[in-house]
Amino acid sequence: MLQPADETFEQVLRAQLPEGALRDVSEAYLEEPRGRFRGKPGLLAAPRNTEEVSQLVRLCSKASVGIVPYGGGTGLVAGQVLPNGPAAVILSLERMAGIRALYPEENVIVAEAGAVLADLKSAAHAADRLFPLSIASEGTAQIGGNLATNAGGVNVLRYGNARDLCLGLEAVLPDGQIWHGLTRLRKDNAGYDLRNLLIGSEGTLGIITAAALKLFPRPASVGAALLVVESPKAALQLLGIARDHVAEGISAFELIAKTGLEFLAETMPQVRQPFAEPPNWMVLVEYGLSAGQEPAEKLAQLFEEGAAGGLVTDGVVAQSQAQHNAFWALRENMPHANRKVGSIASHDISLPLAEIPGFFEACGSKLASLGPFRINGFGHLGDGNLHYNVFPPRGKSREMFDAVKPQVTRVVHDCVVERGGSVAAEHGVGRLKVDEIARYGDATLLSAMRAVKSGLDPKGIMNPGAVLS
Amino acid sequence: MLQPADETFEQVLRAQLPEGALRDVSEAYLEEPRGRFRGKPGLLAAPRNTEEVSQLVRLCSKASVGIVPYGGGTGLVAGQVLPNGPAAVILSLERMAGIRALYPEENVIVAEAGAVLADLKSAAHAADRLFPLSIASEGTAQIGGNLATNAGGVNVLRYGNARDLCLGLEAVLPDGQIWHGLTRLRKDNAGYDLRNLLIGSEGTLGIITAAALKLFPRPASVGAALLVVESPKAALQLLGIARDHVAEGISAFELIAKTGLEFLAETMPQVRQPFAEPPNWMVLVEYGLSAGQEPAEKLAQLFEEGAAGGLVTDGVVAQSQAQHNAFWALRENMPHANRKVGSIASHDISLPLAEIPGFFEACGSKLASLGPFRINGFGHLGDGNLHYNVFPPRGKSREMFDAVKPQVTRVVHDCVVERGGSVAAEHGVGRLKVDEIARYGDATLLSAMRAVKSGLDPKGIMNPGAVLS
Repeated sequence: MLQPADETFEQVLRAQLPEGALRDVSEAYLEEPRGRFRGKPGLLAAPRNTEEVSQLVRLCSKASVGIVPYGGGTGLVAGQVLPNGPAAVILSLERMAGIRALYPEENVIVAEAGAVLADLKSAAHAADRLFPLSIASEGTAQIGGNLATNAGGVNVLRYGNARDLCLGLEAVLPDGQIWHGLTRLRKDNAGYDLRNLLIGSEGTLGIITAAALKLFPRPASVGAALLVVESPKAALQLLGIARDHVAEGISAFELIAKTGLEFLAETMPQVRQPFAEPPNWMVLVEYGLSAGQEPAEKLAQLFEEGAAGGLVTDGVVAQSQAQHNAFWALRENMPHANRKVGSIASHDISLPLAEIPGFFEACGSKLASLGPFRINGFGHLGDGNLHYNVFPPRGKSREMFDAVKPQVTRVVHDCVVERGGSVAAEHGVGRLKVDEIARYGDATLLSAMRAVKSGLDPKGIMNPGAVLS
Repeated sequence: MLQPADETFEQVLRAQLPEGALRDVSEAYLEEPRGRFRGKPGLLAAPRNTEEVSQLVRLCSKASVGIVPYGGGTGLVAGQVLPNGPAAVILSLERMAGIRALYPEENVIVAEAGAVLADLKSAAHAADRLFPLSIASEGTAQIGGNLATNAGGVNVLRYGNARDLCLGLEAVLPDGQIWHGLTRLRKDNAGYDLRNLLIGSEGTLGIITAAALKLFPRPASVGAALLVVESPKAALQLLGIARDHVAEGISAFELIAKTGLEFLAETMPQVRQPFAEPPNWMVLVEYGLSAGQEPAEKLAQLFEEGAAGGLVTDGVVAQSQAQHNAFWALRENMPHANRKVGSIASHDISLPLAEIPGFFEACGSKLASLGPFRINGFGHLGDGNLHYNVFPPRGKSREMFDAVKPQVTRVVHDCVVERGGSVAAEHGVGRLKVDEIARYGDATLLSAMRAVKSGLDPKGIMNPGAVLS
């Protein structure tokens, strides 16, 4: 039974922790970006180092007080706010933001959990290296949170999720013990994979305090193209051709739907549209190639071969950095435009690649029977990861569709699961999708998850109510 | 308390399992390649499908009888043989060897655990795809065992370990429940990472029955070079140059020591030596490039630039497939030559790349004070993974050094751990290294491992005595 982080417990913490470790709980720590959940105010702790995290966790464990780890607060599934139950200690990593070491010759960087992703990327760039994790919130998100949620983004196709970029972790487990697992090794089979167990567990099994991460050589040259395709199926066939051309050289392969371009035109007319008439489907392809290869040339070859095969009907290859940036602005402004229009329901889903065309057809037609929605299904096509968002018809407000919202999500998630997909692709489960995971998840997986949770966190103090109910 | 797989339990199994599921325990199932352990005969079961595995595991769980999962039997750390304690059921996956599905457009193959690695690679090749896991024992090793041990090999530098090649698993957990986790998804954050927990757990947390695995496009052209380098340090600098040239195009980067070439000359004179005088160090570099790039040309460029920088003193770029194969024969025959000479102690270690030169110096000089050994330290330099084997001086037998063997291993492992390395890099822990892991492993990691083991396998039936004592 968890106890509240109340004034009595505050006195315990004040007596034991160094000055400055406890702070006032400002509103920012209780909000989440989509505004669907609001945290219950408890206590806010911001330790300066791993030992202080350990000390704090020991005290919470002893008193059976819950802990909500808090990174940049940019998560979209409410893993960072605890709305119900006994108030918890919000444990912010903001004061642990250092780059501990960088080994350019090993392509490794070691950073504290509170390091802001953009700062980490800058540090890598300054050493002529690439840290490839690229997400919309990188100016605020922290690497500890990125790892806890196994963040994705636009470069997963080439470099993998946050999970794939991590070599080693330092973490504080629910009993307060510190795991010194900050290895820089590429091969290490000395025991169970605690690293990957913590990654993606959303703070429910421990607190990541630092990470050793992979860096990559920066591609010698980068190029991008917007190619108009007939359908998602044609886009996938084009991806196969791109793979034949440049193998691992494809850094991103993003699908953009007509609805998305229309939303941009409606809400952000300052964003320049690439084609006179918004096409039904297009892909944004980025190549990052090694010395001696010319991305623009290779992209032109993709355009030509795609056109010859009837897959591509129009397109433009960026001829300047400004044009390159303009292409990406389309993709990067898509979530803003979506927010301005206001979705009834949004879904972060993934599918086996071959199932994507069938999913679009089946789900679109099932939703049409519920109402005259506008659908923006876009995103990381190369990974099979789509953001499939459902909007009211033009001129109608989303509030008019509040009643049908649960049905919309049920239709979408059913269509995903029927095709072997996931209803929590890159944003995680948090508190938003606990019931969805319980509904769709494999029973054996869920019971194994509970066994692991009980084994590592018998008192249930770590991020109570996230991932597992 | 575990019970023996005795005649009484055999009757239980015979009554419940289909005919043919139980077999005679032939000697082959009790041996391991290095002959240091011998399994205790118990019962041998070879289920035909996942349901039969589940049924068997339920019966064993009910009766508290241990299970030793058995793949190809090629593991080098005795994870596949149980020498002590109550006799167990050896559960062989040999009858579950099918390729369930292949999705060329998704770059995914789904195989049963008993599929022989070479057969799986052939199936991928037949679909014009690459399954890159490449290990010496691939003609016998099974993919289930490769995953259970997180196998490595020569292509890890580019494609990762077995872990990195796996998208989804089907497995039977210690209570007999089947986990249907055979997803083909590239992104899925719906819960804890049970997949990576099972991978590398060496059969102590469950039995992998099938896997969905990543395929890759086959490189358009492949080339190899042997380059003589001054030192391991020069080899690592050369790797940096190669990365700048071809990025992910480096498929392998293997270090070969003079001692290894001498062993080949002594024991396998039919293997053609590349240089008149065996150099102190050389690297075998393989490039696999996409269309329009010429590996031989790029390797010549590496040779030139390495020579200009004083890193490379001699070399040869393969000009034909025969020459390419001859280069690889040197590397692939190295373990055979080692075996013929007969090592006192062999070590599967990994190090942070920057620590490798210092390790060679320090460890070599410490061993010299123990005796006039010959040392063959070679292997997957690009991953920081070396096979560091210690041999008697020429003309002496290894038996003469039996007394000093524990000291040799202590010196080597101490040198590795002092530099942040791992004493179980790609072969795993098995039963051979349980004490080493207990000695060197992080205390928090070990207690977390025990908590996970107790949570998932409270009776301790799965591969008793492997990984954890």
